[in-house]
Amino acid sequence: MDSIGYHKKYKGKIGTELKSPINDKSDLSLAYTPGVASVSLELSKDPKKASLLSLKSNTIAVLSDGSAVLGLGNIGPYGAIPVMEGKAALFKKFGGVDAFPICVNSQDNEEIIKLAKNIAPVFGGINLEDIEAPRCFEIERRLIKELDIPVMHDDQHGTAVVVLSALINAVKVTNKDKSVKIVINGAGAAGTAVCDLLLEYGFKNIVICDSKGAISKKRSDLNIEKGRLTKITNKNSEVGDIHQIIKNKDVFIGVSKGNLIDKSDVANMNSNAIIFAMANPTPEIMPDEAKKGGAKIVASGRSDFNNQINNVLAFPGIFRGALDNKVKKITNKMLIQAAINLSKLVKVPTPEKIIANPFEKGVVKAVSSAVK
Amino acid sequence: MDSIGYHKKYKGKIGTELKSPINDKSDLSLAYTPGVASVSLELSKDPKKASLLSLKSNTIAVLSDGSAVLGLGNIGPYGAIPVMEGKAALFKKFGGVDAFPICVNSQDNEEIIKLAKNIAPVFGGINLEDIEAPRCFEIERRLIKELDIPVMHDDQHGTAVVVLSALINAVKVTNKDKSVKIVINGAGAAGTAVCDLLLEYGFKNIVICDSKGAISKKRSDLNIEKGRLTKITNKNSEVGDIHQIIKNKDVFIGVSKGNLIDKSDVANMNSNAIIFAMANPTPEIMPDEAKKGGAKIVASGRSDFNNQINNVLAFPGIFRGALDNKVKKITNKMLIQAAINLSKLVKVPTPEKIIANPFEKGVVKAVSSAVK
Repeated sequence: MDSIGYHKKYKGKIGTELKSPINDKSDLSLAYTPGVASVSLELSKDPKKASLLSLKSNTIAVLSDGSAVLGLGNIGPYGAIPVMEGKAALFKKFGGVDAFPICVNSQDNEEIIKLAKNIAPVFGGINLEDIEAPRCFEIERRLIKELDIPVMHDDQHGTAVVVLSALINAVKVTNKDKSVKIVINGAGAAGTAVCDLLLEYGFKNIVICDSKGAISKKRSDLNIEKGRLTKITNKNSEVGDIHQIIKNKDVFIGVSKGNLIDKSDVANMNSNAIIFAMANPTPEIMPDEAKKGGAKIVASGRSDFNNQINNVLAFPGIFRGALDNKVKKITNKMLIQAAINLSKLVKVPTPEKIIANPFEKGVVKAVSSAVK
Repeated sequence: MDSIGYHKKYKGKIGTELKSPINDKSDLSLAYTPGVASVSLELSKDPKKASLLSLKSNTIAVLSDGSAVLGLGNIGPYGAIPVMEGKAALFKKFGGVDAFPICVNSQDNEEIIKLAKNIAPVFGGINLEDIEAPRCFEIERRLIKELDIPVMHDDQHGTAVVVLSALINAVKVTNKDKSVKIVINGAGAAGTAVCDLLLEYGFKNIVICDSKGAISKKRSDLNIEKGRLTKITNKNSEVGDIHQIIKNKDVFIGVSKGNLIDKSDVANMNSNAIIFAMANPTPEIMPDEAKKGGAKIVASGRSDFNNQINNVLAFPGIFRGALDNKVKKITNKMLIQAAINLSKLVKVPTPEKIIANPFEKGVVKAVSSAVK
């Protein structure tokens, strides 16, 4: 069965279920009229009680405008549905979180922000998803500030957690440390957040490239977000495209597009090179090609190779923890602890196993216990 | 256990469930990346396929702004949550419809309309709920016109279906016919829609009262909706408050507020009077009081008396039918057929049994089969 056949067979992936019994008139009078009136009055007086007395206790929105879906780009809200519904299914499967997809038929930031605030009452959190950079930064920043529920853009912070988790084990396996030279290729949502979290964890030497090459103070074509990066990365003001910048680096982190580098680029890196080629579905370099170039550790976003770096390791646990611990704001400190906990699930890291897989036990607990 | 205890115990009433298996990496690659990309591309090219390949196939929104919740009035979006969530639970329980509550933190019509249109991609229908009149009329009208999924304000049309269904049997039991003299007390969402549907079914003599008395051409204080009613009701231009208008009527239909009339009012009606006192939780007159006044048939909105007129008899079946039969617009013709089918479920109507109860088999089928 292919994926379209799978979706046709089940007519989608999620539905609703009853959490409380409604089996007779007596149940009906508790769950609905007349009894429900007392609960409604209670919540109108004290909205905070919604997280005790309603679905808000365990429900989040997976919200996208379809502007940057998977590797497919701006395919709009209908194209986004299967991905957001899939994400909602994974939230339930792995985290026990009731997540509902909101695919917004607008790509105007103010309209999206207003909509998110207007539907917030029933949600205990909002997972932003597949919104293009740099628009995603403002939407996330504003919603974090203006709502009293946790809001997180998973493409940024979920990715950052799993990359950091994998990198912690990768430097251990290769006997490297926080002074490794890192190049991040891709300065959108994921690249920016990965960069920020690695720096906050303690990695010191990062150069980040966009499609025009290394981001540095010498560039005059940068938006505000990329301008900010010039102050915290690329201390030696390296200049050049990815093929030049990758030379003598220890770590390549790709969150860009497929088939971008080849084995000769890997051969130009320091020995025991670490390659995270995470473009989907085609990595920046195929794992076997990277190995031929001399890479010691190769990870990708794909399930058909070892070392799959997949956000599903992070997002169910992050919101599980946020809901359980009534967290209003998800901080980098929590995310770093989540990455550390996740890395420790791999008892003896090896080049072929630097990260847990989502079906292993303990993944959600490792992450959720950090979000408190 | 009281209702607050019930809600606290279960932390609300609905969650999500998986409709498709996600048990190993292979499932994951069908439900999510990389397989899901093919489904996303398909839907971005042809959004109509969302109702075959996604949750849109069986999911509706229960949308309210909390401006007219139960008998509680304008208690806002948080107060609305337990009712909308309850409604969503009843949709699932009785109709197998996956319904999700959207409680909007705005009471601006344009903002609500824009929001509904912006979240529409994942929904196969929208059930509007507990929005105050006359604002509800414009919201419904606009959404029906501007969306390609069925939209129905249940306070209006769900109520109208169950009232018509009960009235069909009530006139049968009392040997009356479509020429009965009817007074409807309450000219908001429910009263207006009940009036329209009874007229379209063939009842001819209706006077409708608001809090200032009978609505007639002589009134100069009417909004557009009530002005419209003067053209189709009260042919004799009766004037007066409900105590005057109820005299010599056969049928009293109350969708207003509790304790409004007493047994002497009922005694002033024609013989074999029919009383539908549907204010919640306190009826316009208590059933035993109405009987003392000489009423032959008494119905109310309450589950603790015979003849409960409850929208739950209608709305699950209406949207079940709309989803199953890919209905884009719910028409009065469908609603009348639904009421007729529902009335026939009571094989031998008696004064104490003029309407089915929601736990009886066949209720949803009777209604859904009419919506096609």
